[in-house]
Amino acid sequence: MIEVGVIGATGYTGWELIRLLVNHPQVNLRFATSKSRAGESLGAVFPSAPDIPLIDPEKAAMKGTDVVFLCLPHAESASVAVEALDASVRVIDLSADFRLRDAAIYQKWYKVEHPAPELLGEAVYGLTEVTRADLPEARLVANPGCYPTSVLLALKPLLDQDAINDTIIVDSKSGVSGAGRKPKLMTHYVEVEGNLSPYSLGRLHRHLPEMEQVAAWWSKKAPAMIFSPHLVPAPRGLLSTIYVRLDAGWSDAKVHDLYNQAYGNEAFIHVLAEGENATYAHVNYTNRCAIGLALAEETLIITSAIDNLIKGASGQAIQNMNAMFGIDETVGLPL
Amino acid sequence: MIEVGVIGATGYTGWELIRLLVNHPQVNLRFATSKSRAGESLGAVFPSAPDIPLIDPEKAAMKGTDVVFLCLPHAESASVAVEALDASVRVIDLSADFRLRDAAIYQKWYKVEHPAPELLGEAVYGLTEVTRADLPEARLVANPGCYPTSVLLALKPLLDQDAINDTIIVDSKSGVSGAGRKPKLMTHYVEVEGNLSPYSLGRLHRHLPEMEQVAAWWSKKAPAMIFSPHLVPAPRGLLSTIYVRLDAGWSDAKVHDLYNQAYGNEAFIHVLAEGENATYAHVNYTNRCAIGLALAEETLIITSAIDNLIKGASGQAIQNMNAMFGIDETVGLPL
Amino acid sequence: MIEVGVIGATGYTGWELIRLLVNHPQVNLRFATSKSRAGESLGAVFPSAPDIPLIDPEKAAMKGTDVVFLCLPHAESASVAVEALDASVRVIDLSADFRLRDAAIYQKWYKVEHPAPELLGEAVYGLTEVTRADLPEARLVANPGCYPTSVLLALKPLLDQDAINDTIIVDSKSGVSGAGRKPKLMTHYVEVEGNLSPYSLGRLHRHLPEMEQVAAWWSKKAPAMIFSPHLVPAPRGLLSTIYVRLDAGWSDAKVHDLYNQAYGNEAFIHVLAEGENATYAHVNYTNRCAIGLALAEETLIITSAIDNLIKGASGQAIQNMNAMFGIDETVGLPL
Amino acid sequence: MIEVGVIGATGYTGWELIRLLVNHPQVNLRFATSKSRAGESLGAVFPSAPDIPLIDPEKAAMKGTDVVFLCLPHAESASVAVEALDASVRVIDLSADFRLRDAAIYQKWYKVEHPAPELLGEAVYGLTEVTRADLPEARLVANPGCYPTSVLLALKPLLDQDAINDTIIVDSKSGVSGAGRKPKLMTHYVEVEGNLSPYSLGRLHRHLPEMEQVAAWWSKKAPAMIFSPHLVPAPRGLLSTIYVRLDAGWSDAKVHDLYNQAYGNEAFIHVLAEGENATYAHVNYTNRCAIGLALAEETLIITSAIDNLIKGASGQAIQNMNAMFGIDETVGLPL
Repeated sequence: MIEVGVIGATGYTGWELIRLLVNHPQVNLRFATSKSRAGESLGAVFPSAPDIPLIDPEKAAMKGTDVVFLCLPHAESASVAVEALDASVRVIDLSADFRLRDAAIYQKWYKVEHPAPELLGEAVYGLTEVTRADLPEARLVANPGCYPTSVLLALKPLLDQDAINDTIIVDSKSGVSGAGRKPKLMTHYVEVEGNLSPYSLGRLHRHLPEMEQVAAWWSKKAPAMIFSPHLVPAPRGLLSTIYVRLDAGWSDAKVHDLYNQAYGNEAFIHVLAEGENATYAHVNYTNRCAIGLALAEETLIITSAIDNLIKGASGQAIQNMNAMFGIDETVGLPL
Repeated sequence: MIEVGVIGATGYTGWELIRLLVNHPQVNLRFATSKSRAGESLGAVFPSAPDIPLIDPEKAAMKGTDVVFLCLPHAESASVAVEALDASVRVIDLSADFRLRDAAIYQKWYKVEHPAPELLGEAVYGLTEVTRADLPEARLVANPGCYPTSVLLALKPLLDQDAINDTIIVDSKSGVSGAGRKPKLMTHYVEVEGNLSPYSLGRLHRHLPEMEQVAAWWSKKAPAMIFSPHLVPAPRGLLSTIYVRLDAGWSDAKVHDLYNQAYGNEAFIHVLAEGENATYAHVNYTNRCAIGLALAEETLIITSAIDNLIKGASGQAIQNMNAMFGIDETVGLPL
Repeated sequence: MIEVGVIGATGYTGWELIRLLVNHPQVNLRFATSKSRAGESLGAVFPSAPDIPLIDPEKAAMKGTDVVFLCLPHAESASVAVEALDASVRVIDLSADFRLRDAAIYQKWYKVEHPAPELLGEAVYGLTEVTRADLPEARLVANPGCYPTSVLLALKPLLDQDAINDTIIVDSKSGVSGAGRKPKLMTHYVEVEGNLSPYSLGRLHRHLPEMEQVAAWWSKKAPAMIFSPHLVPAPRGLLSTIYVRLDAGWSDAKVHDLYNQAYGNEAFIHVLAEGENATYAHVNYTNRCAIGLALAEETLIITSAIDNLIKGASGQAIQNMNAMFGIDETVGLPL
Repeated sequence: MIEVGVIGATGYTGWELIRLLVNHPQVNLRFATSKSRAGESLGAVFPSAPDIPLIDPEKAAMKGTDVVFLCLPHAESASVAVEALDASVRVIDLSADFRLRDAAIYQKWYKVEHPAPELLGEAVYGLTEVTRADLPEARLVANPGCYPTSVLLALKPLLDQDAINDTIIVDSKSGVSGAGRKPKLMTHYVEVEGNLSPYSLGRLHRHLPEMEQVAAWWSKKAPAMIFSPHLVPAPRGLLSTIYVRLDAGWSDAKVHDLYNQAYGNEAFIHVLAEGENATYAHVNYTNRCAIGLALAEETLIITSAIDNLIKGASGQAIQNMNAMFGIDETVGLPL
């Protein structure tokens, strides 16, 4: 059994993570922490949750724990990661703290000095399908952002070919759980229902540097991106509609071949047939990424859908844990 | 022209009120106030609102104003009402402050001493169809609560007949705008969407004493009520399903006759045909109350629907204003 | 392994059933049938479904099958049940065909002569918590209706005590999947969204005789019911708010004691603490029934929530299967 | 008074049109027709509609009618237009029949021979803000499609400058009422709710040739478009997020200046301030088009929102009528 702790259990990703962990046959959940709700049970926070006690993070028994998942706000997360690593506990961080390799870029986008820049070089970017070779040895895994997961998996095969020359346009649509559980006017039911809201358009969202950083790892052409997130009146689900200019010589068949070769053996990546587009309905409540491919003259339109709480956060975190501990990646995850 | 002011313009009822007032052909909106957003425009608060300036309530020009609408929290409202009346401005209060006639009952339910008990005897309860005779002379009108509006209009004809002997069961279902615009976990999109939540069941909700007080005015039998509100995943709309035990001798036809006689001349009350039940779709975006009547053996099931923001708040407030100033009640209101 | 077939796989209950069955560790799904989509894969019907072939029901290999689940329209179901039983295959019928014991009452409500009245005496009513003793020997199980499941589990402890003297008022609120997948105006998105609709009020809905029949098994007082279903703008979930007049002598504590004793050992029935009401959020995506109890003077208000597709249909069907085959009832079901 | 008839009153656009027309102070609604519901009242079709009789289209009194609105399926509409024009009744056609100037292109996209190609040259494309000069003399107006309205108003100022050299990428998101009222699986509540679906991606949707045709009228560069519509879980609203590559030399200020000059005097077009993006909440239940402009390096991202049933259909149809009959365009329309 893998001995597991969850730090920060009362947000949507924390609860989704625990929901999956308690059904994972090779996991023993040792503790779940919450500063604000310590002493209560998880069932008091989420009506369908089991009665797991929430403890103060100070009381978390690191000794004997194999791995902790950090579901904390950025900056706060890195400090806890340091403590855990010092206690020889491996770390899967669901915050943004270890996704960017460059502390200066982190500071520019997150408006705070990085609390542990010495760890940036070591952290493995946990896009499991791509970086799984590094996971068995990893002490510290940076779980990717939800938008980057949908976008990077959709672009990887083309970036590997250096097939993208031009700015990539990414028009993403996310359900509301991605905005967190803290009540804000932006997530008030009456403001969201019946509405559809673009925000942080162009080059303003914090997931943009994460995506461009990784794209540059894969393609020496390091294409720039325009990224337009939208808030959708749905609790969960994330769809990115991506526009890529391709050279002549690509056909629908050739594009499908490329993706089927890249992902044919992946349990969680579903390359859809010609004519089929990815939707939330393909992926919600699963750890899948569904990818649709439609070529319109020289423009390839990729639709890439994930459940933002599962493949976009907690499911991928468990997939990473599975790879770190040498067990089948699909164990405990909804296919 | 009626010279009008709105005190507290940045909640859902305030904005709905202004939306209607600016299209009212006999109204001049002199000012709209907001403590928290003074200096901004209403359009900065609600994306579809016009650019009406929001002023600090201290700067509201009471002189020359005929009537003010108070869209304020309870207790706060009564104090402002006193000031307005002192300045010879008539008041339509959308809060709960003048709905209950007994200051002790007010204190019991609202947990605060009544700020102006001397006005309780004077306030007219503004259920327009019932109390319109008192409105032309009224200085102070207490606009009814949303739940009471749906329930009392549904019960009036039977209460007038002293036909109700037994406890009345009221199962109400409200859209989320009734809970206000201040962000709370209860109104977070992800908590509401896909959910349905009963709350304050039985004899716990503040609208219960308001309903029982008025029922006792109309029927010497003063029937008690069991009242179960539910939060529905919809932005607006309110439906009460009401269960009343009737004596033998009532038939579907006799019940419909009673209601058609009571309401046949009312522009805003739609008594539905036999077999038709009231729904949000009958009333949303109108000032209507739709009433369905279904007799099942000795139990009459009344379905009574209103738009909680219009007939349940701002629309009825304007209907009251129309009656106060001697103009046709339907002017400026969606039929 | 239990060798299982599903007849009628392309409705919402069929797909929910298969979703659960393919993850059930002691089940081998031998076939899934569809008349209209035979030859296609289930994944072509539901985007998140696996690629299970849909076969023509004529080609279903009954030989070697232990049990079939029937997800068919009423009347159609009974005929298929006869064929299966003739082939020595046990049957769990999710239609209404074997819920009523009296063929005349069936005909009155379902407007068709019962196709197999000779089986009515044998069918076990599969409200698992109540009838589990009969399941190991059962050849034919009638899976309860969704509304009856929520209502009967909520009333059982009181009916067992003969504590209910008076007509029971049941105000139920169901998500839209209960209305089936066939497109109708009533389930058109634009008609449902933002709306709330009562229907078949009083004594008109087909689940009424089912509930009254079972109540009469449990209490010699055989209380009558008034039943008011409402359609809620949510995909799944079912809440019944039930009003029962109790004698003096009952307290909140006494009621909770009764229910805790009745259900304390039940894995799927959650009796909520005083002050907590059942909501969809307690139960959706689980096989639970959550029961809240609130006493207001002499009226007990019971809130009873289930996921209509799981505990109200496919989950309970699997719970029944587990009991029929002597394995732990919770296997393969979300707690 | 303008004497008006509505042909085809029982779809969403028909009812929205009538809702507006009955409140229009200079309109007399002479008749509303329906083939399938003739003899019933509009209130029997839509619960909140007034009791306007629906007559068989054969019985519509063309004589004395000034203008008819056609809310019919394509191909069917053109034949009725011919009849109306023959009876000297002006026509505003909300179908696609007279939007494309070339009968061959019409046939290619709508899979049917055009029923009245001789009228194509005469029809005025009723994008009111652009073509209002032609409306007073027009006998026949082609009301634009919903997607083209949002896209063409957003692009006009740039096309007029020949500022667009490259393929335009249009990512549009529409509420469900745009798909019509006829029940289909695609519009079933359970399929739509919680989902988000792209469809007809790239160069497959019928509104594409309409948009490219008009763009070519305005800019000799006749830019091509990639058009990706998405179905959003909302009853109404339409947002197009449009990506245009601009030459160096454009700044946010310069773009805003251009649009403010183009639209500064337009009552229904709201050019938003820098940093503000268009949402459904800016426009629903109004006849507005809200336009947000965000420049990200060389890419201009335009967000353009309309209410698909009002500015995208019935509201713009009335705006066209107003212009045809020489009255203020805003009369009878929600600002």
